[in-house]
Amino acid sequence: MSTDEMMDALCQKAIHLLREDANKIEKLIEVQMETLTNRRCPLYEEVLDTQMYGLSREIDFAVRAGLIEETDGKEILNKLERNLAYLYEALNQHTE
Amino acid sequence: MSTDEMMDALCQKAIHLLREDANKIEKLIEVQMETLTNRRCPLYEEVLDTQMYGLSREIDFAVRAGLIEETDGKEILNKLERNLAYLYEALNQHTE
Repeated sequence: MSTDEMMDALCQKAIHLLREDANKIEKLIEVQMETLTNRRCPLYEEVLDTQMYGLSREIDFAVRAGLIEETDGKEILNKLERNLAYLYEALNQHTE
Repeated sequence: MSTDEMMDALCQKAIHLLREDANKIEKLIEVQMETLTNRRCPLYEEVLDTQMYGLSREIDFAVRAGLIEETDGKEILNKLERNLAYLYEALNQHTE
């Protein structure tokens, strides 16, 4: 294996790990969306915020370590943030 | 550069970045220790807890990406946790 191939493999692994973590948060958001008819759970929002912070630290580290591009990291976070915004909007409409 | 040398460099960089982040939390703990004579600030503890969580996510990611050994990651966290324990002990004695 050449150094280029090795770096490629490492970067692929890094982005795969980060997407996996992003998917876990995605699932948390979906579960909360599905239970909108149940009463709102403030702890759930706190958990989501904490998870988002954790992922942002992982992504920041991966960028600094040279494993992923800053734009790829931002894309992962932005997508999640959009979904979170939909969730909070839906929650607000439900509790109005 | 060989693949071994490249992997070495990446691992060195990863552990250096994590130690840098650990040092930042270390500084936060020191500052709080120095201001023990001032009134206790609950927000400070929350900030420290959040920072610790963020670092633990970075370390977990670095371990999964194969950049650092699990024991090295645990060593960084354990050292910080010991210092945090000292801080909370000192805070408790001060407020008793």
